[in-house]
Amino acid sequence: MLVNGVHTRTVWMEDGVVKMIDQPRLPHEFRIVDLPHHTDTAKSISTMIVRGAGAIGATGAYGIAQAALEAPEDGFHAYMAAAADTMSKTRPTAQNLFYGIKYVLKAIEGAGDDIAAARAAAVTAAQAVADDDAACCEAIGRHGAAVVPDVARVSTHCNAGWLAFVDWGSAISPLYVAHRSGKDVFVFVDETRPRSQGARLTAWELGQEGVPHAVIADNAAGHYMRTGEINMVIVGSDRIAANGDVANKIGTYTSALAAKAAGIPFYVAAPTTTIDPDCPSGDDIPIEERSGDEVRFTWGWSDAGEFIRIRTVPDGSPARNPAFDVTPAALIAGIITEKGIIEASPEGIASVARTL
Amino acid sequence: MLVNGVHTRTVWMEDGVVKMIDQPRLPHEFRIVDLPHHTDTAKSISTMIVRGAGAIGATGAYGIAQAALEAPEDGFHAYMAAAADTMSKTRPTAQNLFYGIKYVLKAIEGAGDDIAAARAAAVTAAQAVADDDAACCEAIGRHGAAVVPDVARVSTHCNAGWLAFVDWGSAISPLYVAHRSGKDVFVFVDETRPRSQGARLTAWELGQEGVPHAVIADNAAGHYMRTGEINMVIVGSDRIAANGDVANKIGTYTSALAAKAAGIPFYVAAPTTTIDPDCPSGDDIPIEERSGDEVRFTWGWSDAGEFIRIRTVPDGSPARNPAFDVTPAALIAGIITEKGIIEASPEGIASVARTL
Repeated sequence: MLVNGVHTRTVWMEDGVVKMIDQPRLPHEFRIVDLPHHTDTAKSISTMIVRGAGAIGATGAYGIAQAALEAPEDGFHAYMAAAADTMSKTRPTAQNLFYGIKYVLKAIEGAGDDIAAARAAAVTAAQAVADDDAACCEAIGRHGAAVVPDVARVSTHCNAGWLAFVDWGSAISPLYVAHRSGKDVFVFVDETRPRSQGARLTAWELGQEGVPHAVIADNAAGHYMRTGEINMVIVGSDRIAANGDVANKIGTYTSALAAKAAGIPFYVAAPTTTIDPDCPSGDDIPIEERSGDEVRFTWGWSDAGEFIRIRTVPDGSPARNPAFDVTPAALIAGIITEKGIIEASPEGIASVARTL
Repeated sequence: MLVNGVHTRTVWMEDGVVKMIDQPRLPHEFRIVDLPHHTDTAKSISTMIVRGAGAIGATGAYGIAQAALEAPEDGFHAYMAAAADTMSKTRPTAQNLFYGIKYVLKAIEGAGDDIAAARAAAVTAAQAVADDDAACCEAIGRHGAAVVPDVARVSTHCNAGWLAFVDWGSAISPLYVAHRSGKDVFVFVDETRPRSQGARLTAWELGQEGVPHAVIADNAAGHYMRTGEINMVIVGSDRIAANGDVANKIGTYTSALAAKAAGIPFYVAAPTTTIDPDCPSGDDIPIEERSGDEVRFTWGWSDAGEFIRIRTVPDGSPARNPAFDVTPAALIAGIITEKGIIEASPEGIASVARTL
């Protein structure tokens, strides 16, 4: 999508160098990081310079392609095995990461003992992973735009925009398509405490694309739904269970409750790679509890332009910090995938689920 | 309630000097401010050194008593009229403020032309306003404690603790009583963005009283209700309509929805002075929209110990900031008042409403 008027992806590769947007610096500084070696690329995932399911998957794939270009002819496969191990350990629970790595490793295997062919296949495969992610998200945009009203007042939570993928994004993609097609789209961006991905990343994306929006405290979304100022909700997802229950950033569940109470549609948008067919229901999704310091401290820019943290909680008070919650399928109007909009039900999920 | 082990009120008067806790410095510094003149006291309200309905009401009453002590014998009544005007304009929508001012002015009127008697009556009346607020809140604590389970995992929003009143508080008072009586009470404190009154004030109060608690992002409350970790909600109120609808800090409504969905009781605790019998329903309560900068900037303590603000929203992104929301009566298990627990219904409200 657009950054300062120029089309940009979150991550790409040029002459063996992986290049990506330095996401922790956003929205206050737009900077591209060059990663010349696959170990640099691995580190960009573990330190969260890149985040978001689709963007991490493509980065993992590019890292393996880099390793194939670096690996000596003598000992090529041993080098690749070590690189795959390094890359896999950067975010041990990221399903898309493993998918990207495996996809490129399979292409290398397919080339047999022809090292030059293996290198070429690795680069092609990594590019295919990135392009597939962008194409899925673009298709989500087309399918989703059909259910965006001509005058859309849309609530979204966290960042399920293009910064979380290679391009377009999931939840925000239909809004980009609708906005470009001339629909009157205004987005209420949930701040998304404690890490403020909505305030920082979604607001920045929308601003760069010229989509009218306002940041609100997470507390305000339900109020605007009740009073009729919001007429649609679209969020992304971290994992979708076989029965249609959806795990997503903490706070998604109460947003879905408020939408139901107000009688407005609550959509989830995600590529079908997000579906976990082995997970029967939302109750089977473990909810990660992260450090309470994410609640106790807030990061941002001081008036002097420094990126610092401040404390808002008394010294002796503990905090608890669940990262995700589960939204039951019954609250979901539909799941927008690259294959179309499906029902949040076992039948709907089964109709599009894919296995690796 | 207790501060560093010593019983303290939010505001009191000694020898004509009003003394109060400097609330914006909490939780990082506990400081008492001395206000020798009624104009100092007026300024403490407008600059929000004191906040919270009950605390503001008592401060207004003390300010009028101060003015009565200051006023010259010659021109006493003109001085008092000017002082009442100054004091009333500090927070033009605070119902308790007007109550406190009027109560003391009536006592002065009752003394006729005996200036010495008028001064004495003013001091006595101001003290009565403060003592009545503390007594109402203490009674709310007694009535409310009866519905606090022996093992209570309680969610609360914003600060409806003793810092918002003279002592005890509304929503937190039943928890103090239950905790002191030996019940196992743990409080999940909503951070309460954008102004973080939960993280700053409620957490500090609970810590001083030794009540176990954890601060959570507002987004996490619904999750803990759904998963059974929270079994009760108690919040305060800024205004209660004649039909039982309740206005309170933004975010209260979604908390009530989540409680209803989880089948756990959602209580509102407030003195009957909070009831506005002239307001038919929640739809008739105007919702103040405050500056978007409260969302765009967060205040807190830097690692160097300075009280500063940071920005978390992109420079060009606007924000919207409704201060309150309305919780429909149907979501409320009961309203805990100083006269007992009533139904959130026209009949329940009518049974306890008082007029000035």
